[in-house]
Amino acid sequence: MAAKKGTLYLIPTTLGESKPDWVIPAGVLATSRRLKHFIAENERSARRYLKAIGTEHPLDDLQFYILDKRSKAIDVPRLIAPLLQGVDMGLISEAGLPAIADPGGLAVAACHQNKIKVVPGTGPSSIVLGLIASGFNGQEFSFHGYLPMNKKDRLHKLRILENEVRKTGATQIFMETPFRNESLFEDMMNHCSPGTEICVATDITLQTEVITTHTVDEWIKHPPKIDKRPCMFLMGVSC
Amino acid sequence: MAAKKGTLYLIPTTLGESKPDWVIPAGVLATSRRLKHFIAENERSARRYLKAIGTEHPLDDLQFYILDKRSKAIDVPRLIAPLLQGVDMGLISEAGLPAIADPGGLAVAACHQNKIKVVPGTGPSSIVLGLIASGFNGQEFSFHGYLPMNKKDRLHKLRILENEVRKTGATQIFMETPFRNESLFEDMMNHCSPGTEICVATDITLQTEVITTHTVDEWIKHPPKIDKRPCMFLMGVSC
Repeated sequence: MAAKKGTLYLIPTTLGESKPDWVIPAGVLATSRRLKHFIAENERSARRYLKAIGTEHPLDDLQFYILDKRSKAIDVPRLIAPLLQGVDMGLISEAGLPAIADPGGLAVAACHQNKIKVVPGTGPSSIVLGLIASGFNGQEFSFHGYLPMNKKDRLHKLRILENEVRKTGATQIFMETPFRNESLFEDMMNHCSPGTEICVATDITLQTEVITTHTVDEWIKHPPKIDKRPCMFLMGVSC
Repeated sequence: MAAKKGTLYLIPTTLGESKPDWVIPAGVLATSRRLKHFIAENERSARRYLKAIGTEHPLDDLQFYILDKRSKAIDVPRLIAPLLQGVDMGLISEAGLPAIADPGGLAVAACHQNKIKVVPGTGPSSIVLGLIASGFNGQEFSFHGYLPMNKKDRLHKLRILENEVRKTGATQIFMETPFRNESLFEDMMNHCSPGTEICVATDITLQTEVITTHTVDEWIKHPPKIDKRPCMFLMGVSC
């Protein structure tokens, strides 16, 4: 008979410098502290987070297996080897929930293929927190990740999203690397309809959090302060 | 000068009978306990949850303003009146995060129109927890709420979702009222391609949680136990 396999716990972290107690449930913190083996996107940030919440094991005893954007399918068997040997592991990304907008899904998919149990922990998701605080349709929505870098492609994508909102009422969620926030915002101001509603959700879960929904013509009068701050952008129809 | 307005806190609750400490952060519990005025989808379930977590005020002193599927835009000014008078309120739905797959968005949208601050609390979202535990693409995804009740429309929608996955690789997330889970599952088994990958996420965050990803032909051999249990269904491509 095969030995009992370990469980892969999906370990959420804070979005930037917020207090873990404010965004991570006590039960999830307890699980995170108990583990010794982690599949991590970045060892340094994972160690910093685990040090902040405190661990049951000395920090030097923790073991990290790196899964980042350079990782390939061929690296995965080595990452999940402890799980196959019966050891529980944590999957931890640079910020927020793992396996969403990061390469963690590769480990999760391998777990399903190997009948290893996967348990997701509740934690902050800027996509969902932005959505519920936007006042937009929460019954149908799409997340698009980063918009194209190329200007022509980005404007084309914005037109597609605006049409989708108009046609279906479904909320469209997207983001940009912080240093390009201003440029994306300008594109929306210059190319979207004056009546199109945009929610800008900045510094979600941080002390400096600001979440505001306006039409394009209102935003033009009151532009947001988003330069280099983490932002989620939403286009939709107010309920 | 106008008086200072209150803040609307979006109060997450447990998904069914799980321990609040396991899915709700301590800071969010503290905020929830402090409030006296709630916009609630259902007074009974809101009271039951607040009683379970304990409140700073006697339960009989809590005030509830009902916002359910029968509510209309005309009811909203009465709901947000305390906020305009400077009183903080909580928005609370029947389960999980408010303003997603429930009518709470109506209150949130009214807050943005009245320049009332909205602060979302981290809590369990079966959509996002299902997504990260599926092993599917977490960079692009869509949530469709409930599929159509009419069989012909439902099969048509399933075909659209399957095509979307094939064309874009984006994960497609949907649900069904628990007593129709089996019927939706049969539709997928009978009408989707054998190689299409489906994740069935059942009883998310509960002791009985099971999250499994299989192709249709594997599911046919090992059907899941989903009768009348809360489920999230996902169609996608494993990372």
